[in-house]
Amino acid sequence: MTLTPNDPRLLTPGPLTTSNETKEAMLHDWGSRDQNFIEMNARVRQRLLAIGNANETHVCVLLQGSGTFIVEAALCTLIPRNGKALILINGAYGHRMCRILDYVDRKYLVQETTEDQPPSIEALDRKLKEDPDISHVLAVHCETTSGILNPIEDIAKIVETHNRLLIIDAMSAFGAIELDSKKITFDAVMASSNKCLEGVPGIGFALIRKRTLESCKGNAHSLSLDLYDQWLTMTDTNQWRFTPPTHVIAALEMAIKQFEAEGGVSGRYKRYSENCRVLTEGMKKLGFAPLLPNHLQAPIIVTFKMPQDPAFDFQTFYDEMKKQGYVLYPGKLTVAPSFRIGCIGHLDKKEMLNCISKMKITLENMGLKSVAENKTL
Amino acid sequence: MTLTPNDPRLLTPGPLTTSNETKEAMLHDWGSRDQNFIEMNARVRQRLLAIGNANETHVCVLLQGSGTFIVEAALCTLIPRNGKALILINGAYGHRMCRILDYVDRKYLVQETTEDQPPSIEALDRKLKEDPDISHVLAVHCETTSGILNPIEDIAKIVETHNRLLIIDAMSAFGAIELDSKKITFDAVMASSNKCLEGVPGIGFALIRKRTLESCKGNAHSLSLDLYDQWLTMTDTNQWRFTPPTHVIAALEMAIKQFEAEGGVSGRYKRYSENCRVLTEGMKKLGFAPLLPNHLQAPIIVTFKMPQDPAFDFQTFYDEMKKQGYVLYPGKLTVAPSFRIGCIGHLDKKEMLNCISKMKITLENMGLKSVAENKTL
Repeated sequence: MTLTPNDPRLLTPGPLTTSNETKEAMLHDWGSRDQNFIEMNARVRQRLLAIGNANETHVCVLLQGSGTFIVEAALCTLIPRNGKALILINGAYGHRMCRILDYVDRKYLVQETTEDQPPSIEALDRKLKEDPDISHVLAVHCETTSGILNPIEDIAKIVETHNRLLIIDAMSAFGAIELDSKKITFDAVMASSNKCLEGVPGIGFALIRKRTLESCKGNAHSLSLDLYDQWLTMTDTNQWRFTPPTHVIAALEMAIKQFEAEGGVSGRYKRYSENCRVLTEGMKKLGFAPLLPNHLQAPIIVTFKMPQDPAFDFQTFYDEMKKQGYVLYPGKLTVAPSFRIGCIGHLDKKEMLNCISKMKITLENMGLKSVAENKTL
Repeated sequence: MTLTPNDPRLLTPGPLTTSNETKEAMLHDWGSRDQNFIEMNARVRQRLLAIGNANETHVCVLLQGSGTFIVEAALCTLIPRNGKALILINGAYGHRMCRILDYVDRKYLVQETTEDQPPSIEALDRKLKEDPDISHVLAVHCETTSGILNPIEDIAKIVETHNRLLIIDAMSAFGAIELDSKKITFDAVMASSNKCLEGVPGIGFALIRKRTLESCKGNAHSLSLDLYDQWLTMTDTNQWRFTPPTHVIAALEMAIKQFEAEGGVSGRYKRYSENCRVLTEGMKKLGFAPLLPNHLQAPIIVTFKMPQDPAFDFQTFYDEMKKQGYVLYPGKLTVAPSFRIGCIGHLDKKEMLNCISKMKITLENMGLKSVAENKTL
């Protein structure tokens, strides 16, 4: 792991800690219409398709902006104005898809479960059987709200059986959890540069079934977010319609090289799983309790219940941990009082062990002398 | 000027050549919800407002993406669904505003002149008098299509007289050509990180009159591009609603520091004007003819008519100049056969003189032995 010595490590769902090589790839300027940069776009697009084993059937469309930008762009480019979506929700990112569709007046239904419950496959089957108007099913692969891993393979099978289209928000899982187009039938998968691929933030991308995208002309509600139009230009020229974040793409290409050197999805899954195991076991020993049972936990981000001991103040814990070199994630999205710690980014088991030892010191300094005193909900 | 020795200089309208300090600011990772980054956002927003001398009356809203993203976001957040725009057009960026409004079904009229003609102020006056339904006037400060500087002060006066709202796409001029809210009445000005402020691409921003923005709830057509919603979050917390391009912001802050050290708008205007003068005079001596007369030319990007000598092939010229260390701008947007060369970015007169001497060699190598032979349209 090559890291800047004095920078705090980011234990967040992204932006996350990237390698020095990835950041150093940004020490150049590129002309956005110049051949060197055009070739870089072509390579990045091909390599992203390869991660989804989708080169033969899908195309990769890059888009400026955050994850929400590519999710909005994909939903509104793929779902026609007379379409109807069924959104599987168990957290904030499912709700965000509703909000996106509210803006553009697309019809949708929701199938919601609590944030610690995967969607019922039986209920999905029933809904699709009962309502032939549902054209698209929208699912979140790993819901970063809680860190829950949704059963995307089972969802995809049912959607395929009913001959509907499946759009997957794989933002926080892509690259770390297998999503192979030959095994899981999907029409679009969206993710971003700054999650498990360990690039810097600024680009989203979608792998979209070519046959599906070909029929999407005129669907989009926005020039900037029209993925059909973006795809036409990218396919013809490997250029972007509008100024691309050149440095972010250079960083992404470098990050993908390191991803491939680590063994691709299986290599990354292995490291993150080990990070997650070490972090969770260590924090359990300190008295923290994860929200989710092991079998529902993706090795991406872990939600811990907020300790009820009055000596535990999260802001103090956060500030002290930052002084020790670890930035936790202050945002809470779950209904349950909780906080989250990411296990992704250019970090390994050694960092996780070091983080746990700093937590122990921090808790002691906060007056939680014995870890057994640290009672959780 | 601090530059990477072996990287070609970008003589483009952006992404452009940035200083080493600006790029090196990206060698760290930031947690997007962490206090250090939140404070950086606050500083950047304040400093951008100060460039427009607009801290008392306007707010600064940052947005992920390219210039087109912030233009679309501003238009569709500010113009209500029952509004009507008048678009002043003399190039591709005026036309792009039409395309944006076509996507969202907002009513608009156009007042178009050729790409080498500023809009008629009399015609604008007449149109606003005749059509009381026009609620917003949309203008481009420097139209990058040709490099023409539009008479924004005169436009603003007429719009104010008629009590309509003025939205200015100042993408390629902001920071180099004065746009002082105390002298020029505007409701919104949009620009981006990677033009005259010499940051890297990935962020757009708008300076919006607070009183105007306060009435814009519910106007936007898109969650990602809703500047009202983005502003609410930024005002409350100095955080972004959705993952920001952290490294791009860090680079922008460093770029703004250098901008201020150079003497702000007047310092930058001076350097770019000198760049423009040296470039244009040098190229005239080589036989090239600028499209625009001097008094219409902004010191941002210069359009040269395409030489008609059959020995002149632009692709060869471009490729050879790149080998010599200068990336020209291959995209043509004008109706007239032409090519463009930017005078902006972290470059000075010395680089321009060096560029001219490389051009001379390149033309000679192409068989245009005497510059007098190089006839233009």
